[in-house]
Amino acid sequence: MDQDPRARSGACCPNTGAGAPVRRPRRPAEETREEILNTAEKLFRTHGYASVTIADIAAELSMSPANVFKHFRTKTSLVDAIATRAIEQTLHALKALASDKPASERLAALAHHLMQEHLAEQKDAPFVFEMILVTINEELDCGDRFREIVVGMIAEIIHAGIREGVYHADDVPRLANASFDALACVIHPVMTGMEKAGIMATRCREVVGLIDAALRSPLAK
Amino acid sequence: MDQDPRARSGACCPNTGAGAPVRRPRRPAEETREEILNTAEKLFRTHGYASVTIADIAAELSMSPANVFKHFRTKTSLVDAIATRAIEQTLHALKALASDKPASERLAALAHHLMQEHLAEQKDAPFVFEMILVTINEELDCGDRFREIVVGMIAEIIHAGIREGVYHADDVPRLANASFDALACVIHPVMTGMEKAGIMATRCREVVGLIDAALRSPLAK
Repeated sequence: MDQDPRARSGACCPNTGAGAPVRRPRRPAEETREEILNTAEKLFRTHGYASVTIADIAAELSMSPANVFKHFRTKTSLVDAIATRAIEQTLHALKALASDKPASERLAALAHHLMQEHLAEQKDAPFVFEMILVTINEELDCGDRFREIVVGMIAEIIHAGIREGVYHADDVPRLANASFDALACVIHPVMTGMEKAGIMATRCREVVGLIDAALRSPLAK
Repeated sequence: MDQDPRARSGACCPNTGAGAPVRRPRRPAEETREEILNTAEKLFRTHGYASVTIADIAAELSMSPANVFKHFRTKTSLVDAIATRAIEQTLHALKALASDKPASERLAALAHHLMQEHLAEQKDAPFVFEMILVTINEELDCGDRFREIVVGMIAEIIHAGIREGVYHADDVPRLANASFDALACVIHPVMTGMEKAGIMATRCREVVGLIDAALRSPLAK
Protein backbone atom coordinates (compact mmCIF):
# COMPACT_ATOMS: atom_id res chain seq x y z
CA MET A 1 0.00 0.00 0.00
CA ASP A 2 2.93 2.34 0.66
CA GLN A 3 3.61 4.07 -2.64
CA ASP A 4 5.69 6.85 -1.17
CA PRO A 5 8.10 7.88 -3.96
CA ARG A 6 10.51 9.45 -1.45
CA ALA A 7 10.71 6.17 0.43
CA ARG A 8 11.25 4.21 -2.76
CA SER A 9 14.03 6.48 -3.95
CA GLY A 10 15.64 6.48 -0.50
CA ALA A 11 18.46 4.26 0.74
CA CYS A 12 17.54 0.64 0.18
CA CYS A 13 17.25 -1.65 3.10
CA PRO A 14 19.51 -4.72 2.48
CA ASN A 15 16.91 -7.31 3.54
CA THR A 16 14.24 -5.97 1.15
CA GLY A 17 13.66 -8.24 -1.80
CA ALA A 18 14.01 -6.65 -5.26
CA GLY A 19 10.69 -5.26 -6.56
CA ALA A 20 9.03 -5.13 -3.13
CA PRO A 21 8.20 -1.58 -2.02
CA VAL A 22 10.57 -0.18 0.56
CA ARG A 23 8.81 0.76 3.79
CA ARG A 24 9.80 4.00 5.52
CA PRO A 25 10.81 3.65 9.11
CA ARG A 26 7.77 3.78 11.39
CA ARG A 27 7.17 7.07 13.16
CA PRO A 28 4.96 7.59 16.17
CA ALA A 29 1.32 7.78 15.02
CA GLU A 30 0.92 11.12 16.79
CA GLU A 31 3.70 12.65 14.72
CA THR A 32 2.19 11.42 11.44
CA ARG A 33 -1.19 12.72 12.52
CA GLU A 34 0.24 16.19 13.20
CA GLU A 35 2.04 16.19 9.86
CA ILE A 36 -1.19 15.27 8.04
CA LEU A 37 -3.06 18.04 9.87
CA ASN A 38 -0.40 20.63 9.04
CA THR A 39 -0.44 19.74 5.37
CA ALA A 40 -4.25 19.51 5.15
CA GLU A 41 -4.58 22.88 6.86
CA LYS A 42 -2.06 24.47 4.49
CA LEU A 43 -3.79 23.05 1.40
CA PHE A 44 -7.33 23.90 2.61
CA ARG A 45 -6.21 27.45 3.40
CA THR A 46 -4.55 28.07 0.07
CA HIS A 47 -6.76 26.12 -2.34
CA GLY A 48 -10.07 25.81 -0.48
CA TYR A 49 -11.65 22.87 1.27
CA ALA A 50 -13.89 21.88 -1.62
CA SER A 51 -11.12 21.54 -4.18
CA VAL A 52 -8.60 19.59 -2.09
CA THR A 53 -8.94 15.79 -1.88
CA ILE A 54 -7.46 13.28 0.56
CA ALA A 55 -5.35 12.10 -2.38
CA ASP A 56 -3.94 15.64 -2.80
CA ILE A 57 -2.99 15.72 0.87
CA ALA A 58 -1.34 12.32 0.59
CA ALA A 59 0.57 13.37 -2.56
CA GLU A 60 1.83 16.55 -0.88
CA LEU A 61 3.13 14.39 1.98
CA SER A 62 4.50 11.73 -0.39
CA MET A 63 2.31 9.33 1.52
CA SER A 64 -0.27 6.81 0.34
CA PRO A 65 -3.93 7.91 0.56
CA ALA A 66 -4.48 4.76 2.62
CA ASN A 67 -2.03 6.04 5.19
CA VAL A 68 -3.91 9.36 5.50
CA PHE A 69 -7.16 7.41 5.61
CA LYS A 70 -5.83 5.36 8.55
CA HIS A 71 -5.71 8.58 10.60
CA PHE A 72 -8.66 10.51 9.14
CA ARG A 73 -11.49 8.70 7.43
CA THR A 74 -13.12 11.82 5.95
CA LYS A 75 -12.29 15.38 4.95
CA THR A 76 -14.74 16.63 7.57
CA SER A 77 -12.89 14.75 10.33
CA LEU A 78 -9.73 16.55 9.14
CA VAL A 79 -11.45 19.94 9.40
CA ASP A 80 -12.79 19.02 12.84
CA ALA A 81 -9.29 18.11 14.04
CA ILE A 82 -7.76 21.27 12.50
CA ALA A 83 -10.37 23.49 14.17
CA THR A 84 -10.13 21.68 17.52
CA ARG A 85 -6.36 22.12 17.48
CA ALA A 86 -6.72 25.85 16.76
CA ILE A 87 -9.26 26.16 19.60
CA GLU A 88 -6.95 24.42 22.08
CA GLN A 89 -4.13 26.80 21.07
CA THR A 90 -6.40 29.82 21.59
CA LEU A 91 -7.32 28.44 25.01
CA HIS A 92 -3.70 28.60 26.14
CA ALA A 93 -3.33 32.20 24.96
CA LEU A 94 -6.57 33.19 26.69
CA LYS A 95 -5.89 31.62 30.07
CA ALA A 96 -3.27 34.19 31.00
CA LEU A 97 -5.25 37.10 29.54
CA ALA A 98 -5.57 40.03 31.94
CA SER A 99 -5.96 37.60 34.83
CA ASP A 100 -4.81 40.27 37.32
CA LYS A 101 -7.46 42.80 36.17
CA PRO A 102 -11.02 43.41 37.45
CA ALA A 103 -13.71 41.06 36.07
CA SER A 104 -15.27 43.60 33.68
CA GLU A 105 -11.89 44.30 32.07
CA ARG A 106 -11.23 40.60 31.76
CA LEU A 107 -14.58 40.10 30.02
CA ALA A 108 -13.75 42.89 27.55
CA ALA A 109 -10.27 41.45 26.96
CA LEU A 110 -11.66 37.95 26.37
CA ALA A 111 -14.23 39.13 23.82
CA HIS A 112 -11.76 41.42 22.08
CA HIS A 113 -9.10 38.74 21.86
CA LEU A 114 -11.47 36.13 20.38
CA MET A 115 -12.79 38.64 17.86
CA GLN A 116 -9.28 39.65 16.81
CA GLU A 117 -8.26 36.01 16.41
CA HIS A 118 -11.13 35.35 14.03
CA LEU A 119 -10.66 38.60 12.13
CA ALA A 120 -6.94 37.90 11.65
CA GLU A 121 -7.59 34.28 10.59
CA GLN A 122 -10.08 35.31 7.95
CA LYS A 123 -8.00 38.20 6.65
CA ASP A 124 -5.03 35.87 6.18
CA ALA A 125 -6.86 33.19 4.28
CA PRO A 126 -10.06 33.71 2.33
CA PHE A 127 -10.77 29.98 2.38
CA VAL A 128 -10.98 29.83 6.18
CA PHE A 129 -14.61 30.95 5.98
CA GLU A 130 -15.39 27.93 3.79
CA MET A 131 -13.88 25.62 6.43
CA ILE A 132 -15.93 27.32 9.14
CA LEU A 133 -19.11 26.71 7.16
CA VAL A 134 -18.14 23.02 6.89
CA THR A 135 -17.76 22.76 10.67
CA ILE A 136 -21.23 24.27 11.05
CA ASN A 137 -23.06 22.45 8.27
CA GLU A 138 -21.61 19.12 9.35
CA GLU A 139 -22.23 19.89 13.04
CA LEU A 140 -18.68 18.95 13.95
CA ASP A 141 -17.60 18.58 17.57
CA CYS A 142 -15.19 21.55 17.41
CA GLY A 143 -18.12 24.00 17.65
CA ASP A 144 -19.25 22.48 20.96
CA ARG A 145 -15.66 22.42 22.17
CA PHE A 146 -15.28 26.15 21.41
CA ARG A 147 -18.51 26.96 23.23
CA GLU A 148 -17.59 24.82 26.24
CA ILE A 149 -14.15 26.43 26.65
CA VAL A 150 -15.32 30.03 26.27
CA VAL A 151 -18.41 29.57 28.47
CA GLY A 152 -16.09 28.10 31.12
CA MET A 153 -13.86 31.18 30.92
CA ILE A 154 -16.82 33.57 31.15
CA ALA A 155 -18.11 31.64 34.19
CA GLU A 156 -14.70 32.00 35.81
CA ILE A 157 -14.78 35.78 35.19
CA ILE A 158 -18.32 36.06 36.61
CA HIS A 159 -17.21 34.21 39.75
CA ALA A 160 -14.28 36.63 40.07
CA GLY A 161 -16.72 39.57 39.68
CA ILE A 162 -18.91 38.15 42.43
CA ARG A 163 -15.87 37.87 44.70
CA GLU A 164 -15.05 41.52 43.88
CA GLY A 165 -18.60 42.40 44.91
CA VAL A 166 -19.48 43.98 41.52
CA TYR A 167 -21.38 41.14 39.84
CA HIS A 168 -24.55 39.52 41.14
CA ALA A 169 -25.58 36.09 39.94
CA ASP A 170 -27.48 33.16 41.33
CA ASP A 171 -26.94 30.89 38.38
CA VAL A 172 -23.46 31.48 36.97
CA PRO A 173 -23.45 28.76 34.25
CA ARG A 174 -26.75 30.06 32.91
CA LEU A 175 -25.51 33.68 32.76
CA ALA A 176 -22.20 32.54 31.27
CA ASN A 177 -24.10 30.79 28.48
CA ALA A 178 -26.33 33.81 27.85
CA SER A 179 -23.25 36.08 27.80
CA PHE A 180 -21.52 33.78 25.31
CA ASP A 181 -24.58 33.89 23.06
CA ALA A 182 -24.86 37.67 23.34
CA LEU A 183 -21.22 37.89 22.25
CA ALA A 184 -21.84 35.74 19.16
CA CYS A 185 -22.19 38.91 17.06
CA VAL A 186 -18.48 39.62 17.61
CA ILE A 187 -16.86 36.28 18.46
CA HIS A 188 -18.70 33.78 16.26
CA PRO A 189 -16.41 33.06 13.30
CA VAL A 190 -19.28 33.43 10.85
CA MET A 191 -20.20 36.85 12.24
CA THR A 192 -16.65 38.22 12.32
CA GLY A 193 -16.39 37.49 8.61
CA MET A 194 -19.21 39.89 7.84
CA GLU A 195 -18.16 43.33 8.98
CA LYS A 196 -15.26 45.72 8.85
CA ALA A 197 -12.81 45.53 11.77
CA GLY A 198 -13.60 49.06 13.02
CA ILE A 199 -17.34 48.42 13.26
CA MET A 200 -16.64 45.09 14.96
CA ALA A 201 -14.46 46.75 17.60
CA THR A 202 -17.23 49.24 18.49
CA ARG A 203 -19.84 46.47 18.59
CA CYS A 204 -17.63 44.37 20.82
CA ARG A 205 -17.20 47.23 23.31
CA GLU A 206 -20.91 48.05 23.35
CA VAL A 207 -22.13 44.47 23.78
CA VAL A 208 -19.57 43.81 26.52
CA GLY A 209 -20.90 46.99 28.21
CA LEU A 210 -24.44 45.63 27.99
CA ILE A 211 -23.45 42.26 29.47
CA ASP A 212 -21.43 44.00 32.18
CA ALA A 213 -24.47 46.12 33.13
CA ALA A 214 -26.64 43.00 33.28
CA LEU A 215 -24.12 41.17 35.49
CA ARG A 216 -23.88 44.18 37.84
CA SER A 217 -27.65 44.29 38.18
CA PRO A 218 -29.06 42.50 41.21
CA LEU A 219 -31.94 41.58 38.88
CA ALA A 220 -29.80 39.18 36.85
CA LYS A 221 -30.64 35.69 37.99
CA MET B 1 -36.78 42.70 -28.30
CA ASP B 2 -39.98 41.12 -27.04
CA GLN B 3 -39.74 37.44 -27.86
CA ASP B 4 -42.53 36.38 -25.57
CA PRO B 5 -43.98 33.21 -27.11
CA ARG B 6 -47.26 33.66 -25.24
CA ALA B 7 -47.68 37.10 -26.76
CA ARG B 8 -46.94 35.79 -30.23
CA SER B 9 -49.41 32.93 -29.95
CA GLY B 10 -52.06 35.22 -28.47
CA ALA B 11 -54.90 37.00 -30.31
CA CYS B 12 -53.42 38.95 -33.21
CA CYS B 13 -53.86 42.68 -33.30
CA PRO B 14 -55.44 43.63 -36.69
CA ASN B 15 -53.08 46.53 -37.41
CA THR B 16 -49.92 44.44 -36.93
CA GLY B 17 -48.09 43.73 -40.17
CA ALA B 18 -47.46 40.06 -40.95
CA GLY B 19 -44.08 38.83 -39.69
CA ALA B 20 -43.61 41.70 -37.18
CA PRO B 21 -43.55 40.47 -33.56
CA VAL B 22 -46.76 41.20 -31.68
CA ARG B 23 -46.16 43.41 -28.65
CA ARG B 24 -48.05 42.63 -25.47
CA PRO B 25 -50.01 45.47 -24.00
CA ARG B 26 -47.82 47.58 -21.73
CA ARG B 27 -48.29 47.02 -18.02
CA PRO B 28 -47.26 49.33 -15.24
CA ALA B 29 -43.52 48.94 -14.59
CA GLU B 30 -44.22 48.27 -10.89
CA GLU B 31 -46.39 45.28 -11.78
CA THR B 32 -43.73 43.79 -14.07
CA ARG B 33 -41.10 44.36 -11.38
CA GLU B 34 -43.21 42.46 -8.81
CA GLU B 35 -43.80 39.63 -11.26
CA ILE B 36 -40.06 39.34 -11.94
CA LEU B 37 -39.35 39.31 -8.20
CA ASN B 38 -41.97 36.63 -7.54
CA THR B 39 -40.57 34.38 -10.25
CA ALA B 40 -36.92 34.98 -9.33
CA GLU B 41 -37.70 34.23 -5.68
CA LYS B 42 -39.54 31.04 -6.62
CA LEU B 43 -36.67 29.84 -8.85
CA PHE B 44 -33.92 30.80 -6.39
CA ARG B 45 -35.77 29.02 -3.59
CA THR B 46 -36.35 25.80 -5.51
CA HIS B 47 -33.18 25.54 -7.63
CA GLY B 48 -30.67 27.69 -5.75
CA TYR B 49 -29.30 31.12 -6.51
CA ALA B 50 -26.10 29.90 -8.16
CA SER B 51 -27.80 27.69 -10.73
CA VAL B 52 -30.54 30.10 -11.89
CA THR B 53 -29.68 32.68 -14.57
CA ILE B 54 -31.46 35.88 -15.59
CA ALA B 55 -32.28 34.03 -18.84
CA ASP B 56 -34.03 31.28 -16.80
CA ILE B 57 -36.12 33.87 -15.00
CA ALA B 58 -37.04 35.53 -18.30
CA ALA B 59 -37.95 32.15 -19.86
CA GLU B 60 -40.17 31.24 -16.89
CA LEU B 61 -41.98 34.57 -17.36
CA SER B 62 -42.09 34.20 -21.17
CA MET B 63 -40.29 37.52 -21.24
CA SER B 64 -37.11 38.60 -23.00
CA PRO B 65 -33.93 38.68 -20.84
CA ALA B 66 -33.59 42.32 -21.94
CA ASN B 67 -36.91 43.08 -20.29
CA VAL B 68 -35.78 41.54 -16.98
CA PHE B 69 -32.48 43.38 -17.38
CA LYS B 70 -34.37 46.70 -17.73
CA HIS B 71 -35.63 46.22 -14.15
CA PHE B 72 -32.70 44.37 -12.55
CA ARG B 73 -29.22 44.63 -13.97
CA THR B 74 -27.71 41.82 -11.89
CA LYS B 75 -28.73 38.71 -9.99
CA THR B 76 -27.47 40.32 -6.78
CA SER B 77 -29.82 43.29 -7.27
CA LEU B 78 -32.65 40.75 -7.58
CA VAL B 79 -31.66 39.11 -4.29
CA ASP B 80 -31.38 42.54 -2.64
CA ALA B 81 -34.89 43.44 -3.81
CA ILE B 82 -36.33 40.05 -2.74
CA ALA B 83 -34.79 40.38 0.73
CA THR B 84 -35.82 44.02 1.12
CA ARG B 85 -39.40 43.10 0.21
CA ALA B 86 -39.41 40.29 2.78
CA ILE B 87 -38.04 42.68 5.42
CA GLU B 88 -40.73 45.30 4.70
CA GLN B 89 -43.38 42.58 5.04
CA THR B 90 -41.93 41.47 8.38
CA LEU B 91 -42.01 45.10 9.52
CA HIS B 92 -45.77 45.26 9.09
CA ALA B 93 -46.29 42.05 11.07
CA LEU B 94 -44.00 43.29 13.85
CA LYS B 95 -45.49 46.73 14.30
CA ALA B 96 -48.65 45.42 15.89
CA LEU B 97 -46.81 42.81 17.95
CA ALA B 98 -47.75 42.86 21.66
CA SER B 99 -47.97 46.66 21.54
CA ASP B 100 -50.25 46.70 24.58
CA LYS B 101 -47.82 44.66 26.73
CA PRO B 102 -45.03 45.85 29.07
CA ALA B 103 -41.72 46.71 27.41
CA SER B 104 -39.87 43.56 28.53
CA GLU B 105 -42.60 41.34 27.06
CA ARG B 106 -42.51 43.31 23.81
CA LEU B 107 -38.74 42.82 23.59
CA ALA B 108 -39.16 39.07 24.08
CA ALA B 109 -41.97 38.95 21.51
CA LEU B 110 -39.91 40.90 18.95
CA ALA B 111 -36.88 38.63 19.29
CA HIS B 112 -38.98 35.47 19.29
CA HIS B 113 -40.96 36.55 16.23
CA LEU B 114 -37.85 37.43 14.19
CA MET B 115 -36.20 34.15 15.15
CA GLN B 116 -39.29 32.14 14.20
CA GLU B 117 -39.53 33.95 10.84
CA HIS B 118 -35.97 32.99 9.96
CA LEU B 119 -36.32 29.44 11.23
CA ALA B 120 -39.52 28.92 9.22
CA GLU B 121 -37.98 30.46 6.08
CA GLN B 122 -34.98 28.20 6.22
CA LYS B 123 -36.94 25.08 7.00
CA ASP B 124 -39.17 25.71 4.00
CA ALA B 125 -36.42 26.22 1.49
CA PRO B 126 -32.88 24.91 1.84
CA PHE B 127 -31.63 27.39 -0.75
CA VAL B 128 -32.65 30.42 1.31
CA PHE B 129 -29.38 30.14 3.24
CA GLU B 130 -27.46 30.47 -0.03
CA MET B 131 -29.34 33.71 -0.81
CA ILE B 132 -28.60 35.05 2.66
CA LEU B 133 -24.88 34.41 2.13
CA VAL B 134 -25.11 36.35 -1.15
CA THR B 135 -26.66 39.35 0.63
CA ILE B 136 -23.79 39.25 3.14
CA ASN B 137 -20.88 38.57 0.79
CA GLU B 138 -22.05 41.24 -1.65
CA GLU B 139 -22.79 43.67 1.20
CA LEU B 140 -26.26 44.38 -0.17
CA ASP B 141 -28.40 47.22 1.21
CA CYS B 142 -31.06 44.85 2.61
CA GLY B 143 -28.79 43.99 5.55
CA ASP B 144 -28.58 47.65 6.61
CA ARG B 145 -32.31 48.02 6.07
CA PHE B 146 -33.03 45.06 8.37
CA ARG B 147 -30.76 46.46 11.06
CA GLU B 148 -32.25 49.95 10.78
CA ILE B 149 -35.85 48.70 11.12
CA VAL B 150 -35.21 46.35 14.04
CA VAL B 151 -32.98 48.82 15.92
CA GLY B 152 -35.78 51.40 15.52
CA MET B 153 -38.27 48.95 17.03
CA ILE B 154 -35.98 48.12 19.96
CA ALA B 155 -35.45 51.86 20.59
CA GLU B 156 -39.23 52.33 20.65
CA ILE B 157 -39.56 49.50 23.21
CA ILE B 158 -36.78 50.98 25.38
CA HIS B 159 -38.55 54.36 25.33
CA ALA B 160 -41.77 52.61 26.40
CA GLY B 161 -39.86 50.89 29.23
CA ILE B 162 -38.48 54.24 30.40
CA ARG B 163 -42.02 55.65 30.44
CA GLU B 164 -43.11 52.61 32.47
CA GLY B 165 -40.29 53.42 34.92
CA VAL B 166 -38.60 50.00 34.53
CA TYR B 167 -35.82 50.81 32.06
CA HIS B 168 -33.04 53.34 32.58
CA ALA B 169 -31.13 54.71 29.62
CA ASP B 170 -29.33 57.93 28.76
CA ASP B 171 -28.49 56.98 25.22
CA VAL B 172 -31.37 54.95 23.75
CA PRO B 173 -30.05 54.57 20.16
CA ARG B 174 -26.74 53.28 21.49
CA LEU B 175 -28.43 50.72 23.77
CA ALA B 176 -30.84 49.73 20.99
CA ASN B 177 -27.87 48.99 18.73
CA ALA B 178 -26.08 46.99 21.43
CA SER B 179 -29.30 45.04 22.12
CA PHE B 180 -29.73 44.29 18.42
CA ASP B 181 -26.14 42.99 18.25
CA ALA B 182 -26.58 40.90 21.40
CA LEU B 183 -29.67 39.34 19.77
CA ALA B 184 -27.72 38.42 16.61
CA CYS B 185 -27.23 34.88 17.98
CA VAL B 186 -30.98 34.26 17.62
CA ILE B 187 -32.22 36.75 15.00
CA HIS B 188 -29.40 36.91 12.48
CA PRO B 189 -30.44 34.72 9.53
CA VAL B 190 -27.02 33.08 9.40
CA MET B 191 -27.18 32.17 13.07
CA THR B 192 -30.73 30.81 13.01
CA GLY B 193 -29.65 28.38 10.30
CA MET B 194 -27.15 26.75 12.65
CA GLU B 195 -29.05 25.32 15.56
CA LYS B 196 -32.08 23.25 16.40
CA ALA B 197 -35.29 25.20 17.06
CA GLY B 198 -35.55 24.09 20.70
CA ILE B 199 -32.04 25.26 21.57
CA MET B 200 -32.69 28.53 19.73
CA ALA B 201 -35.86 29.16 21.76
CA THR B 202 -33.97 28.73 25.05
CA ARG B 203 -31.13 30.96 23.85
CA CYS B 204 -33.58 33.62 22.77
CA ARG B 205 -35.25 33.66 26.19
CA GLU B 206 -31.93 33.78 28.06
CA VAL B 207 -30.37 36.54 25.94
CA VAL B 208 -33.55 38.64 26.13
CA GLY B 209 -33.38 38.16 29.93
CA LEU B 210 -29.78 39.42 29.93
CA ILE B 211 -30.66 42.50 27.84
CA ASP B 212 -33.71 43.16 30.02
CA ALA B 213 -31.53 43.04 33.17
CA ALA B 214 -29.06 45.48 31.57
CA LEU B 215 -31.83 47.89 30.57
CA ARG B 216 -33.31 47.76 34.10
CA SER B 217 -29.94 48.57 35.61
CA PRO B 218 -29.33 52.25 36.36
CA LEU B 219 -25.73 51.49 35.33
CA ALA B 220 -26.66 51.06 31.67
CA LYS B 221 -25.66 54.22 29.88
